[in-house]
Amino acid sequence: MNDINKQHTPELLALDWGTSSLRAFLLGGDGQVLQTRSTSQGLQSLPVPGAAGFEKAFADIAGDWLANWPQLPVVAGGMIGSIQGWKEAPYVRCPADVGSLAAHSVRMPSGAGVDVVIAPGVLLDEVGMAPDVIRGEEIQIAGALAENPALAERATMVLPGTHSKWVQIRNGRITHFSSYMTGEIFSVLVKHSILGRLMTDETSAEAGAEKAAFMQGLQAARDSQPGDFTHQIFASRTLGLTERLPSHLLKSYLSGLLIGHELVSGLAKSSTVLQAQGPLLLIGEGTLCQRYASAFAAMGVAVAGILDNPAPRGLWEFAKALGLLKKPMHILN
Amino acid sequence: MNDINKQHTPELLALDWGTSSLRAFLLGGDGQVLQTRSTSQGLQSLPVPGAAGFEKAFADIAGDWLANWPQLPVVAGGMIGSIQGWKEAPYVRCPADVGSLAAHSVRMPSGAGVDVVIAPGVLLDEVGMAPDVIRGEEIQIAGALAENPALAERATMVLPGTHSKWVQIRNGRITHFSSYMTGEIFSVLVKHSILGRLMTDETSAEAGAEKAAFMQGLQAARDSQPGDFTHQIFASRTLGLTERLPSHLLKSYLSGLLIGHELVSGLAKSSTVLQAQGPLLLIGEGTLCQRYASAFAAMGVAVAGILDNPAPRGLWEFAKALGLLKKPMHILN
Repeated sequence: MNDINKQHTPELLALDWGTSSLRAFLLGGDGQVLQTRSTSQGLQSLPVPGAAGFEKAFADIAGDWLANWPQLPVVAGGMIGSIQGWKEAPYVRCPADVGSLAAHSVRMPSGAGVDVVIAPGVLLDEVGMAPDVIRGEEIQIAGALAENPALAERATMVLPGTHSKWVQIRNGRITHFSSYMTGEIFSVLVKHSILGRLMTDETSAEAGAEKAAFMQGLQAARDSQPGDFTHQIFASRTLGLTERLPSHLLKSYLSGLLIGHELVSGLAKSSTVLQAQGPLLLIGEGTLCQRYASAFAAMGVAVAGILDNPAPRGLWEFAKALGLLKKPMHILN
Repeated sequence: MNDINKQHTPELLALDWGTSSLRAFLLGGDGQVLQTRSTSQGLQSLPVPGAAGFEKAFADIAGDWLANWPQLPVVAGGMIGSIQGWKEAPYVRCPADVGSLAAHSVRMPSGAGVDVVIAPGVLLDEVGMAPDVIRGEEIQIAGALAENPALAERATMVLPGTHSKWVQIRNGRITHFSSYMTGEIFSVLVKHSILGRLMTDETSAEAGAEKAAFMQGLQAARDSQPGDFTHQIFASRTLGLTERLPSHLLKSYLSGLLIGHELVSGLAKSSTVLQAQGPLLLIGEGTLCQRYASAFAAMGVAVAGILDNPAPRGLWEFAKALGLLKKPMHILN
């Protein structure tokens, strides 16, 4: 079971614990990932309800690691620190970096005998604007900056997903961000609105047709005026009703429309907020990031790079800022 | 059961048959409503599946009327003419009026021995734009114009609802319209998205607080830039998370935001399309129309009037255009 090379002594146990999944990383020197485990035991699907559920999920995924290395420090990021989580780590305010995350972390003593140090989320709260929040993305940002120090001075990081986040970096700190409910809106429209009724999943060999439908939706978004959203999405029904688009391409059209709206707004905001947005980095799952990259390309915006999952490295940086890694752990073993 | 004054001989049986309801009207001279019945047997909740369901719902609601007046002409409008309806009445194109609806109606022979003449919907299909459709609203428009002949030259009619419709009238005809999925989006967001989780229904005595939250959402919509929709709706979560708005006011905020987006877009389009939009009329259920009227007022736009339900009068005009009323029916009795 424990197949870790003896030369790579673990120095940190890091948890990326979200709403729908729990991932555990065993990290060695310089944040190297030695082992990764993943379960679906996120906040919404704990093995038993309440605090015992967190204990059990933690023991299930990392119990043997803790038995082998009982002195291992443990850190966690993501929704685990929300009010619905194991212990609330209240939001820190912008500008934020890994130092302010560490300064406002909370400790949760676990039944396994170790404390789990939980990172807070970040709150953006500017006069005259509705507040905005991130929780989990700040850890990924920390990892992305550690892996790409050249981006620290000025950058825009886009994390597509259920709730996409556009994060502005200035001098190594998160200075501004905007949330877009793109992924969730797509999902509820397809599953629960009249728009889903004409849509079929029929997988076709015509990737080109899907891309064309996606680009057609994207173009509609680029042509939009303020307030047009709830009008424009109706087209993903009428294009089907009038047989302009076959039913299996309506989802691609809607996806292009939704991502297009996000990009139109996000690009305008990121250039407004920082005058120049700096290099643009995509962070997230590969297929989704590729889809976003093609949308950016269609809008004439260059993407500087795509990072798959900087969370383990971010948790490593968080632990370092907490002072948990000061003493090399192999001395203790 | 039949409490109709003998002086008011029925001349038309009119059905307003939608997705979620069926309303039947017995109309006398000049379209006067003699009797109204309503059931929830819309297309989505027929008593039995398929064609037999339409027959049974029709017999249930109007069987005794037909027994008393077997020669009564029968007309129907709404989703009953859609592809999911009793018999499809394909869309007619803009510009459309009650004459073109009559010219493209379809006849459905019923088991009750009478034909039901079903009105088509209307299709807007302009070069370079996604198509748009209405079905049922064209009947209400016909009624509104019959009741307000002064509006025929130039007017904007707004029909708020699950799918709000903004309809431009020029010289008595529907020349342009736009659909907004405002009501349906509100419903799916509250029921099926994360935004609903913090919302409570607690009815408070503070109608003033609810109106203030609605206006706050409306103001955010007025401040929006293209593409901002999926970002701005997230505020109906973060305002709750940060306790800026109590949970029972979050729905009012979201409602103001959604209606505000519709108004910002609709007002821009209606002035673009016809240079001047003409008098603006609201058509629909009273409470909802009052809410829209207050939103228009906050934007400095005067509402010329509110019409509750011009569908029976519209169906009367449709029957007249069909030639069904040429011979006064009391001669036949």
